[in-house]
Amino acid sequence: MERYHYGMIGLGVMGRNLLYNIAENGFSIAGFDLDEEKVKELEEGTASGMKVKGALTLEDFVETLETPRKIILMVPAGKPVDAVLDNITPLLSKGDIVIDAGNSYFMDTNRRIADLSSKDLHFMGIGVSGGEKGARTGPSIMPGGDVEAFHLLKPMLEAISAKVNNEPCTAYMGKGSAGNYVKMVHNGIEYAIMQLISEAYDLLKRGAKLNNDQLYEVFKEWNNGEMNSFLIEITRDIFQQKDSLTDNYLVDQILDKAGAKGTGKWTSEQAMEIGVSIPTIDTAVTSRILSAYKEERVQASRLYTGKEITDPEDISLFINEVGDALFLATLISYAQGLSLLVKASEEYGFGIPLKDVVKIWRGGCIIRSVLLEKFYAAYTRDPNLSNILLDPEISELVKLKIKGLRKTAGYAVANGISSLGIQTALGYFDAYSTESLPVNLIQAQRDYFGAHTYQRIDREGVFHTSWQSVNN
Amino acid sequence: MERYHYGMIGLGVMGRNLLYNIAENGFSIAGFDLDEEKVKELEEGTASGMKVKGALTLEDFVETLETPRKIILMVPAGKPVDAVLDNITPLLSKGDIVIDAGNSYFMDTNRRIADLSSKDLHFMGIGVSGGEKGARTGPSIMPGGDVEAFHLLKPMLEAISAKVNNEPCTAYMGKGSAGNYVKMVHNGIEYAIMQLISEAYDLLKRGAKLNNDQLYEVFKEWNNGEMNSFLIEITRDIFQQKDSLTDNYLVDQILDKAGAKGTGKWTSEQAMEIGVSIPTIDTAVTSRILSAYKEERVQASRLYTGKEITDPEDISLFINEVGDALFLATLISYAQGLSLLVKASEEYGFGIPLKDVVKIWRGGCIIRSVLLEKFYAAYTRDPNLSNILLDPEISELVKLKIKGLRKTAGYAVANGISSLGIQTALGYFDAYSTESLPVNLIQAQRDYFGAHTYQRIDREGVFHTSWQSVNN
Repeated sequence: MERYHYGMIGLGVMGRNLLYNIAENGFSIAGFDLDEEKVKELEEGTASGMKVKGALTLEDFVETLETPRKIILMVPAGKPVDAVLDNITPLLSKGDIVIDAGNSYFMDTNRRIADLSSKDLHFMGIGVSGGEKGARTGPSIMPGGDVEAFHLLKPMLEAISAKVNNEPCTAYMGKGSAGNYVKMVHNGIEYAIMQLISEAYDLLKRGAKLNNDQLYEVFKEWNNGEMNSFLIEITRDIFQQKDSLTDNYLVDQILDKAGAKGTGKWTSEQAMEIGVSIPTIDTAVTSRILSAYKEERVQASRLYTGKEITDPEDISLFINEVGDALFLATLISYAQGLSLLVKASEEYGFGIPLKDVVKIWRGGCIIRSVLLEKFYAAYTRDPNLSNILLDPEISELVKLKIKGLRKTAGYAVANGISSLGIQTALGYFDAYSTESLPVNLIQAQRDYFGAHTYQRIDREGVFHTSWQSVNN
Repeated sequence: MERYHYGMIGLGVMGRNLLYNIAENGFSIAGFDLDEEKVKELEEGTASGMKVKGALTLEDFVETLETPRKIILMVPAGKPVDAVLDNITPLLSKGDIVIDAGNSYFMDTNRRIADLSSKDLHFMGIGVSGGEKGARTGPSIMPGGDVEAFHLLKPMLEAISAKVNNEPCTAYMGKGSAGNYVKMVHNGIEYAIMQLISEAYDLLKRGAKLNNDQLYEVFKEWNNGEMNSFLIEITRDIFQQKDSLTDNYLVDQILDKAGAKGTGKWTSEQAMEIGVSIPTIDTAVTSRILSAYKEERVQASRLYTGKEITDPEDISLFINEVGDALFLATLISYAQGLSLLVKASEEYGFGIPLKDVVKIWRGGCIIRSVLLEKFYAAYTRDPNLSNILLDPEISELVKLKIKGLRKTAGYAVANGISSLGIQTALGYFDAYSTESLPVNLIQAQRDYFGAHTYQRIDREGVFHTSWQSVNN
C-alpha cells in the first residue's frame, strides 16, 4: 500500500484550499472531516496530477500516512482542537508531527506541545494568512516550534507559500508557540489597518462628500503608489461592487455592525499583560465593539443633533492629507505590533527573527504591503531594532507624512467624525517621541493618596513625601 | 474571657488605618500580622476609648473573636490571600465570615467563595477606596457577596465609611464578587481621570507656558467650582509642594515613569472580554506603559526634533477650554466605566445597583467628585440607564462642554502634545453619537477575504458575496 506524505484534518474552506495547494505542489495528501459530505466532495474538486484521498474514519486516515506522520489540523481554535487531539493521539506513533494551522491561542499551543511531548509526539503551531484564496494559491506561513520537526515540513511550506522576488513567504518564527504568536499579532495589525481604512473612508465620504465612484478612483490611485497593499486593493474593488438585490452599490447596503473572531482582542490583552503599548490595535478592537451598540448609537444620535460637517477648503489637498494620514497611521500600527513581538520574544523566550517576520509578510498575507519592503530593509540594517520608528530611513518617511496626519486628525476632531485609530496613532507617535511626559504628575498623585513612592530625575532611589494639603 | 467583634489580618498602612477606624467607631477588634513588629506597634497607636488587641499567633487571634467570627483580610492580592486562607480556614467554625478588603481579582474571589462555602464558611470581597487617610477617617466601601453575611457587617461598614449628606458611602453592590468588580472599575476610572489631569497639565504647561504657581491657581479655581473633586484638589496641592532636597517644586523633580498595580489593566482586559468599549481607560493604561519606555523616548525625541508649540491666541480662553475638555472627558470616562458595570452585571448575574454605586462614590473614594451628584440624580430618574450619556440632563451638560473639548483636542494634535485620553474620550463620544459608522466597509473587507458574511440594512439574515476584483 502506498502511503501519503501529508494528512489534513478539517476540510472547511481554509482546510480544503490548503490541501489542494499542497497537492498541486507534488505532495500526496489525505483529508479527513467529521462531515462525510466534505470528505466526498474533496476528491471531486481535485485537479489532474493531484494525489488526494478522502478518509471516512480517523483510523483509515492515520493508516494511510507515511511515518513520521505529518498531520495538519485546520479546525476552529479552542475545544475542537483538543477534541481532535484526544481522538487522534492514541492512533499515532513516536515521532509523528501534528501541525495546528488554525488561529489557536498561543498559551493553548504551549499546553499541547507539553502534552504531546509526553507521548513522544511533536506538536507545532503555524500561522497561515491569506484568506481562502491565499490558502489555495499561496499564503504567508508562520511556523514555530520544534526545529527538527520544522525542517521536515520546510520543503512543503516553501513550495505552497506565496513568493516575493522568488523568495518564499515562510520562515521559522521561533520556539514553542512563536508561530501562533506572530499570527496573532499579524491579525492585531490587520484590525488596526482595517479600522484606519474605514476612518479614511468616513472622512472622504462625510467630509469631502465623495461618492463610491470617486472613492474607487482615490483608492485605485493609492493602490498604484506607495500605499500599494492587499487591503487598499480590495477596498478599491469594494467601491465598485454592485448589489444583486437592489440597484445600489453593495457597500451602502451593509449594516455597520462589525464581527470579530478574537485574535485582535487577544493581541490587546497580551500587550497589556506584558507591558507593550499598542493603542491603535486596542482602539480597532474597541471600535468594533462600539459598532455593535447600534441601538444606543441611534438613540444618542437623536439626543446629540446638530453636528455640522464643514467642507474641506481644498478637496484635492484634503484627499492627499487623508492619504498621508492613512499611510503614516498604518506605519505606526505596524510599529506597535512589531514592538510587541520584540517584547514577547524576550518575555517568552521565542527568539523571533523580526527581519524574517516582515520578510514573509511581504506576500500572501492580509497585511502584505509594499511598505514591508522598507521595514525589511530597516531590520536588515539593524536586526535588533526595538521600534521601527527609530530607524533613520523610516523616520524620514514619517517626517514627510506627519503634517497630513496632524491636519486630518484636526479636521476629524473639529467635525465630530470619530477616528480613534488615527488619533491613537498620532498620540502614540507624539508620546513616543517626547522626552518628558506629564507622568511626573501621575506619580505625585499616586504617592499623595496611596504612598506608592516615586523616582527622581536627579537622584537614584525610591522616595515618598508627606504631601501637604493647602487648605483653601 | 471577653471576645472581640472583629479581626483584621494584615497590618500594613491600609489594614492598620482601617482597624483604628473600626475601633474608633465602638467595635472591639483584634489584629494579626506575620510581622511581629507590626503587631507590637498596633496597641501603641491606639487612642483612648479604642478596644484593640494584637495577636502574635493565628490561634490566639481566632480564639479571641466572638462567633460567628468576622475576619477582615487586608493583604496583597493574589497568593498572599490564598496563603492566609490555607492557614486560617482549619481554625474557623461553621458560619464564620472572611472578608477580603484588598484589590483581589474578581475571578479569584469567585473561586474562594466556592471553596469556603464547601467548608460552611462565608467569603466576601469588599472594595475599599480612599487611600491610607480615607481608610482611617472614612473610605468608600463596596461590599458584595452573601446577603445574610453582609447584613451582619452592615452596621460596622456604615459606621466607618465616609458620609455625604449624612448618608454612608457604602451599600450592597451585588452577588458573588460584585464588590471586587465595582472596585476594579472604580480604579479603571481613576486611571482615566489621572491620565486626563496629566494631559491638561501638559497642555497648560507646554502650551500656555504656565508655571507651578499659575497651575496651582488654575486647579484651585477648578476645584472651587463644578470640577470639585478629590483628584483635582490634590493636584492643586501638588503644585505648591516644595522639594526638601532642592529649591524647586517637587513635581518637577519627579521622574516621568508611571507605576501600576494592575487594576487598570484588569478593567481593560475585562471590558474586551465581555465586549464593552472603554477606550479612555484603555489609553490610560497604555499611556503608563508608554511612559516606562523612557530611554526609547529620549532616543526618538532626538530623531524627531523641531516640533514647535504655538502659543494659544487667548490664554484665558485656552485655560477655560482645557477645563471644559477635562470636565467632559472625565464625564465620558465615568460613562465608559459605568457602562462596563451595566454589562458585567448582566454577564455575571451580579445585580449591581448602578444608582447605589454612584451614590457611594460621592464621598471617601479617590474618584469622588461633585459630578457624581448629577449621575446619582440621573440614575434616580432611570435606574436602568444603559449609558449616562443618554440621560437628558447629562446631555445638556455635554453640549455645554463639547466645544472646549474639540478645541483642546485640535490644539493638541496640531502641536504634537500627546493626549490619548482626551482624544479617545472625544472619539468615543463621536462614535457613540453617530448613527452610521463606516463599519460597513470593515464588514465588506471581512467578507471579501475571509467569507465572514455580513448583515444588511434592508433585509434580515446573513449574506455572503463573491466579491469581484477590478483588474487595473
